[in-house]
Amino acid sequence: MSKTVLVLGGDGFCGWPTSLHLSALGHEVVIVDNFVRRRIAEQLEAPSLTPIASIDERLNTWKDVSGHDIDIVELDIAQDYPELRRLLASVRPDAIVHFAEQRAAPYSMRDAAHKAYTVDNNINGTHNVLAAIAELGLDAHLIHLGTMGVYGYVGDGREIPEGYLDVTVDGPDGARHSRRILYPTKPGSIYHLTKSMDQLMFQFYAGNDRLPITDLHQGIVWGTQTEETRLEPALINRFDYDGDYGTVLNRFLMQAAAGRPLTVHGTGGQTRAFINIQDTVRCIALALDNPPAAGDPVRIINQVAETRRVRDLAELVSELTGAEIEYVDNPRSEAAENDLTVSNATLTGLGLEPILLRDELLTETVDIALRFIDRANLDTIPATALWSGQAEREVPQLQAPRFALR
Amino acid sequence: MSKTVLVLGGDGFCGWPTSLHLSALGHEVVIVDNFVRRRIAEQLEAPSLTPIASIDERLNTWKDVSGHDIDIVELDIAQDYPELRRLLASVRPDAIVHFAEQRAAPYSMRDAAHKAYTVDNNINGTHNVLAAIAELGLDAHLIHLGTMGVYGYVGDGREIPEGYLDVTVDGPDGARHSRRILYPTKPGSIYHLTKSMDQLMFQFYAGNDRLPITDLHQGIVWGTQTEETRLEPALINRFDYDGDYGTVLNRFLMQAAAGRPLTVHGTGGQTRAFINIQDTVRCIALALDNPPAAGDPVRIINQVAETRRVRDLAELVSELTGAEIEYVDNPRSEAAENDLTVSNATLTGLGLEPILLRDELLTETVDIALRFIDRANLDTIPATALWSGQAEREVPQLQAPRFALR
Repeated sequence: MSKTVLVLGGDGFCGWPTSLHLSALGHEVVIVDNFVRRRIAEQLEAPSLTPIASIDERLNTWKDVSGHDIDIVELDIAQDYPELRRLLASVRPDAIVHFAEQRAAPYSMRDAAHKAYTVDNNINGTHNVLAAIAELGLDAHLIHLGTMGVYGYVGDGREIPEGYLDVTVDGPDGARHSRRILYPTKPGSIYHLTKSMDQLMFQFYAGNDRLPITDLHQGIVWGTQTEETRLEPALINRFDYDGDYGTVLNRFLMQAAAGRPLTVHGTGGQTRAFINIQDTVRCIALALDNPPAAGDPVRIINQVAETRRVRDLAELVSELTGAEIEYVDNPRSEAAENDLTVSNATLTGLGLEPILLRDELLTETVDIALRFIDRANLDTIPATALWSGQAEREVPQLQAPRFALR
Repeated sequence: MSKTVLVLGGDGFCGWPTSLHLSALGHEVVIVDNFVRRRIAEQLEAPSLTPIASIDERLNTWKDVSGHDIDIVELDIAQDYPELRRLLASVRPDAIVHFAEQRAAPYSMRDAAHKAYTVDNNINGTHNVLAAIAELGLDAHLIHLGTMGVYGYVGDGREIPEGYLDVTVDGPDGARHSRRILYPTKPGSIYHLTKSMDQLMFQFYAGNDRLPITDLHQGIVWGTQTEETRLEPALINRFDYDGDYGTVLNRFLMQAAAGRPLTVHGTGGQTRAFINIQDTVRCIALALDNPPAAGDPVRIINQVAETRRVRDLAELVSELTGAEIEYVDNPRSEAAENDLTVSNATLTGLGLEPILLRDELLTETVDIALRFIDRANLDTIPATALWSGQAEREVPQLQAPRFALR
């Protein structure tokens, strides 16, 4: 059944392929974006490795290829509540997919201005969406992209369930009482902190205003292309490899493509959850088809295909490319080694057959790195943000968008 | 030992008597305030029952009475990070007492604009303070006023501990694992939601940046005067009785003073935690003298003297004044009846002997209501904010300060 779907942050790395996929499935898609991700890339002098077309060219190309229209609205949802409200009142979407948060942990830790920008943008943006749906009395399903990272990576070795944990409390009378709680979070960066705070806002609005909300706790996304972005060069998805926005696999691939060693932070014993971008868009479509009922608790789904150690990832890339591996100091405050197992029962129960890192899509991603290596600014690969506020910074301080762009 | 203490929100109901008390104890006090509470009172046409002097007159009078200087800095900590940073770098306080949050649950629920204002002000303000302390590497103890209300009022009848809960989780192997978690919150308003989100920010900065933080989960404050505010009329504390900022006892007292019935919401079976304003300032002084060490978990203390049902409170006031009691519909989404017991072991362990509602200070509060009843705008007593977004509003919508005052 065709739905009207607002995709907040629909010009970004996950938002763009999601918008195309939902459009290809026959949904009416409206992208809302303030294009801050493009401006941040300019400030960092770290453009996407792949050449990204303008939003107009992207949408015109999509119209030519698919016959489908996607509307675009330029709007900062964190700073302009009245305009967001007007938009929602006019579009009255069946669903809102919310990617419009600052999504890089290292960027959120650069300095106080970047911390403040991340908190201001992510919290006010998410709250504005919730408040507007409630104020207008819209029957709209909110689908939010959260992260597995909210839980931190120091667990007790047991599988992380989907959002909730059943615990027992020993009373002074010796009796044991059971309760279901939100799985306790231990965010490791300001970015992860905001996602953890988002969860409390979702709980509140799901309870007080009976909003149907799905929170997808996503793993680290790898890969670049999806079925739709592959159709034309102007539809290509972004590929980030810098120390702020590039996730670990892309940075290894770029180092390999440049003939450099793969730099592994610490022992590389950090275990993380991963998912391919093609599965991200499939999961969003599955969530869209399966909304919780009004009055239900927030539906929390782990959007994860597999877990891997960072050094195993380096070895995979090394096997494919012949690159050497180099171990360097870790800029983050985190455990050197951790185990991580994650339940993904909901999505596999809905029919998802996840793409794994051994699959051929890893080869495609290697090919993209090699194809565009001449466009790369290799100086941006090392991570520069330090997790400790006391440390001396050798990198120049950037102005966060809040201060630079308004 | 004399300390330099910044009191954020030091012109408000709790902040003002705290500033005087710490000054009387010999601490160097600097008040930081944007005076938004005074402007909100004007917008609501609900001035303090007691005549509040200007901040200059307050401070000059205090200087005359005590011989102590208190500095005042006008600053919006949520909106002006650079100026906050400059202030902290120049004062380099030993402690920061943080009252600078929008503190009325009904006000936070008026409409979407007031929700957004409360989130924006409380979250950005608190985060800016944390980020500035971390960025400057200050050795400053942050003392924050939280609320017992974050836990909601649907418990399992057992005592609410101080911040943390020891739980066990049953593993699939049949083994039981123990962990200590933040006591799960269930905020009942946007105001309470922000206090619950604050907790996550405190956890993060206490861990990542080793900031020493005390979070005082306060009950509903009653009473008006303290040892210091009683000294001169120009030092008198504010007394709020309107449907937004007036807490339940003050509203009962005003109804009694006006010869009206005391309006109890629902059955009056709601049990709440209470503390006298004199004990609030004593507790802050105790927290100031007992900072956690850098690297310690956030110290969470329940700042509570006793728990009472709302209808028992009405009966107390009725006994003192002869007023009748009237039961009316409850505008909040909450349980009609609840039990509540709260541990206050830390503060009583530090020597606090709490003032109880039966004590003579209740009579003083009745006297204040009677003394100033001619100044009252009795139309503001009923609560007008509705917890459900779908309901028709009959009250005019107010502009929240974010939109009206910038």
